[in-house]
Amino acid sequence: MSRLRVAMVGAGRAGLVHARNLTEHTPDAVVVAVVDGEPDRAKSLGGMVGASSCHATLDEALEDTSFDAVVISTPTFTHRDLAVRTAGAGKHVFCEKPMALTVEECDDMIQAAKRSGVALQIGFMRRFQDEFVEARRRIAAGDIGEPMVVKSLTRGPGLPPSWAWDLEKSNGMLAEVNSHDFDCVRWLAGSDFTRVYAETANRKGASRGVETANFYDNAVVALRFASGAVGTIDGTCPADYGYDARVEVVGSEGLLIVGDVRGQPIVEARNRDVGAITPLHRTWPERFEQGYRDEMRSFVDVALGGDRPAVTGEDGRHAVSAVMAANRSWMEERPVALGDGS
Amino acid sequence: MSRLRVAMVGAGRAGLVHARNLTEHTPDAVVVAVVDGEPDRAKSLGGMVGASSCHATLDEALEDTSFDAVVISTPTFTHRDLAVRTAGAGKHVFCEKPMALTVEECDDMIQAAKRSGVALQIGFMRRFQDEFVEARRRIAAGDIGEPMVVKSLTRGPGLPPSWAWDLEKSNGMLAEVNSHDFDCVRWLAGSDFTRVYAETANRKGASRGVETANFYDNAVVALRFASGAVGTIDGTCPADYGYDARVEVVGSEGLLIVGDVRGQPIVEARNRDVGAITPLHRTWPERFEQGYRDEMRSFVDVALGGDRPAVTGEDGRHAVSAVMAANRSWMEERPVALGDGS
Amino acid sequence: MSRLRVAMVGAGRAGLVHARNLTEHTPDAVVVAVVDGEPDRAKSLGGMVGASSCHATLDEALEDTSFDAVVISTPTFTHRDLAVRTAGAGKHVFCEKPMALTVEECDDMIQAAKRSGVALQIGFMRRFQDEFVEARRRIAAGDIGEPMVVKSLTRGPGLPPSWAWDLEKSNGMLAEVNSHDFDCVRWLAGSDFTRVYAETANRKGASRGVETANFYDNAVVALRFASGAVGTIDGTCPADYGYDARVEVVGSEGLLIVGDVRGQPIVEARNRDVGAITPLHRTWPERFEQGYRDEMRSFVDVALGGDRPAVTGEDGRHAVSAVMAANRSWMEERPVALGDGS
Amino acid sequence: MSRLRVAMVGAGRAGLVHARNLTEHTPDAVVVAVVDGEPDRAKSLGGMVGASSCHATLDEALEDTSFDAVVISTPTFTHRDLAVRTAGAGKHVFCEKPMALTVEECDDMIQAAKRSGVALQIGFMRRFQDEFVEARRRIAAGDIGEPMVVKSLTRGPGLPPSWAWDLEKSNGMLAEVNSHDFDCVRWLAGSDFTRVYAETANRKGASRGVETANFYDNAVVALRFASGAVGTIDGTCPADYGYDARVEVVGSEGLLIVGDVRGQPIVEARNRDVGAITPLHRTWPERFEQGYRDEMRSFVDVALGGDRPAVTGEDGRHAVSAVMAANRSWMEERPVALGDGS
Repeated sequence: MSRLRVAMVGAGRAGLVHARNLTEHTPDAVVVAVVDGEPDRAKSLGGMVGASSCHATLDEALEDTSFDAVVISTPTFTHRDLAVRTAGAGKHVFCEKPMALTVEECDDMIQAAKRSGVALQIGFMRRFQDEFVEARRRIAAGDIGEPMVVKSLTRGPGLPPSWAWDLEKSNGMLAEVNSHDFDCVRWLAGSDFTRVYAETANRKGASRGVETANFYDNAVVALRFASGAVGTIDGTCPADYGYDARVEVVGSEGLLIVGDVRGQPIVEARNRDVGAITPLHRTWPERFEQGYRDEMRSFVDVALGGDRPAVTGEDGRHAVSAVMAANRSWMEERPVALGDGS
Repeated sequence: MSRLRVAMVGAGRAGLVHARNLTEHTPDAVVVAVVDGEPDRAKSLGGMVGASSCHATLDEALEDTSFDAVVISTPTFTHRDLAVRTAGAGKHVFCEKPMALTVEECDDMIQAAKRSGVALQIGFMRRFQDEFVEARRRIAAGDIGEPMVVKSLTRGPGLPPSWAWDLEKSNGMLAEVNSHDFDCVRWLAGSDFTRVYAETANRKGASRGVETANFYDNAVVALRFASGAVGTIDGTCPADYGYDARVEVVGSEGLLIVGDVRGQPIVEARNRDVGAITPLHRTWPERFEQGYRDEMRSFVDVALGGDRPAVTGEDGRHAVSAVMAANRSWMEERPVALGDGS
Repeated sequence: MSRLRVAMVGAGRAGLVHARNLTEHTPDAVVVAVVDGEPDRAKSLGGMVGASSCHATLDEALEDTSFDAVVISTPTFTHRDLAVRTAGAGKHVFCEKPMALTVEECDDMIQAAKRSGVALQIGFMRRFQDEFVEARRRIAAGDIGEPMVVKSLTRGPGLPPSWAWDLEKSNGMLAEVNSHDFDCVRWLAGSDFTRVYAETANRKGASRGVETANFYDNAVVALRFASGAVGTIDGTCPADYGYDARVEVVGSEGLLIVGDVRGQPIVEARNRDVGAITPLHRTWPERFEQGYRDEMRSFVDVALGGDRPAVTGEDGRHAVSAVMAANRSWMEERPVALGDGS
Repeated sequence: MSRLRVAMVGAGRAGLVHARNLTEHTPDAVVVAVVDGEPDRAKSLGGMVGASSCHATLDEALEDTSFDAVVISTPTFTHRDLAVRTAGAGKHVFCEKPMALTVEECDDMIQAAKRSGVALQIGFMRRFQDEFVEARRRIAAGDIGEPMVVKSLTRGPGLPPSWAWDLEKSNGMLAEVNSHDFDCVRWLAGSDFTRVYAETANRKGASRGVETANFYDNAVVALRFASGAVGTIDGTCPADYGYDARVEVVGSEGLLIVGDVRGQPIVEARNRDVGAITPLHRTWPERFEQGYRDEMRSFVDVALGGDRPAVTGEDGRHAVSAVMAANRSWMEERPVALGDGS
């Protein structure tokens, strides 16, 4: 079996994480090209992972270089075009979350992949993180009975890039940060959303120089699932204190808590007026290091072997749909139902 | 200073907890009478705490026995009349949560206490539990900046008594179980509610023989505070797995997590296919043992010393008001605002 | 049943803890007298707990006041005389740990109590602390099979009083601090010591102004039990970072860890360069608050009811014997056996 | 830079772990040969990692195949000859712990590597495990002052292979299991051993069919370091309940606890009569997965780049020396000093 040749599209933080995982921990893959609008960034990442072919645009890469798959790690508003274009060229597509800006864009991507018969995987790496996988396994096995209350939270340390402040370009924090929670609770509940209600607040925008309309940095969401389960999601970004992602599921026969605010099994005590100190998770690449690694390995297996991705375009679409409903909810101050066609 | 003579009104589980704390851990108090509609129950508790005077009704007790204060631990729908009657007789009133069935009833109680110049304290014992007190102290001191997201959950192990299934008699689980959370988040946020939205579900009613209309055993609530903070409350009862009460506050400068699912500092490991096992909290009297103890001591101090109770009738009224709004929310499927007059 | 009248002998920190527990949490007891060589200290404690009778010496108290029992919380080198004197006067004796300076002194105390038919209880309060009681219950029930390795540690925050630096007056840190561990591992192992080996070190003495010969502030002890189990004890005092007491038992069928460095169920996170912070235990009265409370209640029950104390003179004697062997071990640089007559 | 060609010597459990890490997570290395006395085992591992060249003996491999380095994962009593032979052939050597059976054997290996100018790295992977690395960093930075008490424990789930029961072939459990602890405490204390005292016990041998003389499955060791620090090591194998490795260091200015009995950030609660359950560590490859991965990457870097290994032959020799002293200690029932020439 020959190695999967991958082109990285987007050489930012997520692109770097994926490229390194492909190069150092995925023997069946090789990064052959890097595409980024900023030539220096493309070159830098290319050099780091041994990909001599660097391009300013995807079209240039498609023309000049031979590859089998792309990993798209660019801003949300570019996902649809990039994915449709590469799928159309017969290349497998890994696309970072959020999948796209609208449900219609998601549909375009799903259709494009279907037409070409290529894989389309969305970047919900929590589905590959051991403790989340184990939680899902236990729930599916009935260990805690039927999920009744499903809760998830994500807090990111720093202010996202400016395009992510803007609802038009990103759908805001609920998309950029809490997409993971929407996907995760739906996966763990084993059921689709039927209704969402959101409250949001802008608490740090002014002090961080954000003047974008409709910016919010805190949100809580009440959820209802088709199964009859209810739930909550909450997000804060910037949270400053660290990266925090935890899930809690109350089932008819028990409780599961997944994740821990503590980042390493170290306890330090120096002063009883301070307390016992344990490292926090600092960043998302660190918190989900293992999940990111296995996510790439899984994508490469799928691309080489023809299996169905563990996270499909439909999964990505459900998350986009729920995020949009949540945004509508807080803007219109009412619960928003999610239908079959939503 | 002579001891405070207390009459217990209600000899059920909560009455027992309070009577024992008064007798064994509050040297300044003595239980002189027990009132309960079931004579055997009154006698049994009376014997346990050395109160020879047992009565079927409060009126009987007021006529026959001399006392300074009452501790009311009866079903919610009886609180107003009992409290107004005792306050009217010039006795200090400790009343279990939820304070009453309606805001109007709360007002009656507050007015009665005011008129007689007696203390009226509501049974939110979490405000006396060390770790909650410490959390409140830190928040008030600004340790984590301004509260932005305030979350609280309570899960009780077993099915509540049948009168508590009925919204008419109890306002249901959000009142009986989650009253504590409503009070707690308001106290920790340092701000009143402005809007609530609730989703509820009835998941175990059928299998537990509950046919009461509008019964629910799971709820999630999205909250908005006057300060701009947002939050969530969730409740499950019966949760079966144990008693669980935890709080989480995200402030502009940090995070506080209060409470732990683990009930004792013991870890046992016997089988690597099972895991490391730590005791859970089994019941509310055990979980909040210290809080209940200090709650009674504080009430007795207030009654003897004339200070303002740490938990006032106004606090109890705010919780009733929020619970009623939450019930209206899920029944009318819309967010409900809480105004000054609500 | 009338209340047990108690005289406090020693009005220092431990005396204060016991007097408060008797007064506020033990309805069946009343503190009627306080004895302390420093009149101000006696008066201060007496006032605090409502005992008008204060004395400079035990003899004075025995002459002037009528009481049923004493609680001895004085320096170790005074225990034998005080206990023998009070037992001789027909009063029940609660004596703080370490029981005495030598095995012979212990024997005198045991004999005196036997002759008078009074109770003699030694102050190993860990045997009343819930999580230790539960651990003992589980081990006795066979939950983890036969104990194979039994470990215990105690670290105290500050420098002990100067008489406790001196081996002649106190047997040093292994007695003053680690007596609890010797008693605890013997109790949990359900077996007596057969051999001990100790290493000690003086690391902070110079900087804290301790010039006493043979002073040590760190120790590790290797243990062998009659049952075939082995174990370790370690102690550090002053540890500065807080009060820390934890036990670990490896049984043939499982592990038990008892105690936690963390002192309260609070996690605070403000800065990812620092970490998640949880309160430590600050002091021994706080760490074992519940154990101290129940220890007094148990002693009073025993004195009033005639049962055998949960912690006997023989238990105290075993700990003294082991501590002395450990001191001999590090001084003579060899393991020391404990025989039947040791 | 071309890849390092590695021959695996020993295709058992440790060999498998290393071979996979080299193949899947170390892009700069390639496994070219597998040597094992059992041809099927060699072939199986060879197939798994794509090494077509399989051999029954090291000599055969040296003759037939071209490679740059070996990874020795065979029983302890074979280490010396294999390491000396490969070093003599100019190949870099990674050798599993314990380094060898005697200090003299260690010296032979160190000399052989020195003569040939090849790297010699010993398999103490804890030095590459993140939380241990961080603990070492903090101690070296003075975060907790001077180490005063240094403790380490290791417990393995199952009975070791029969050759490891035999002191002659393995030095027993203190070598096979607790070698890691000896290395770890010396590394963290930043100081060599001056005296050790050990107690051991054979508690499960009979029931597991072990009749080997001098077999022991439990041990505690008291330690003294040149720096004046003291410490303990304890080991149990088989412990049955899982794999457990934890370290605790009391410094003059604080405490460090490293490692956790809990193996994954999952808490499950189903039954309040049972408790909250968290996964344990099941096996050493799982517990130190990251450490093993980075250990191989580090060895390959060293072999390619010429740096000094992070764990040297001298480190391995110190551990062997301490283990042998500990064995002498329990057999002769006395403390054993470690000199410069020991």
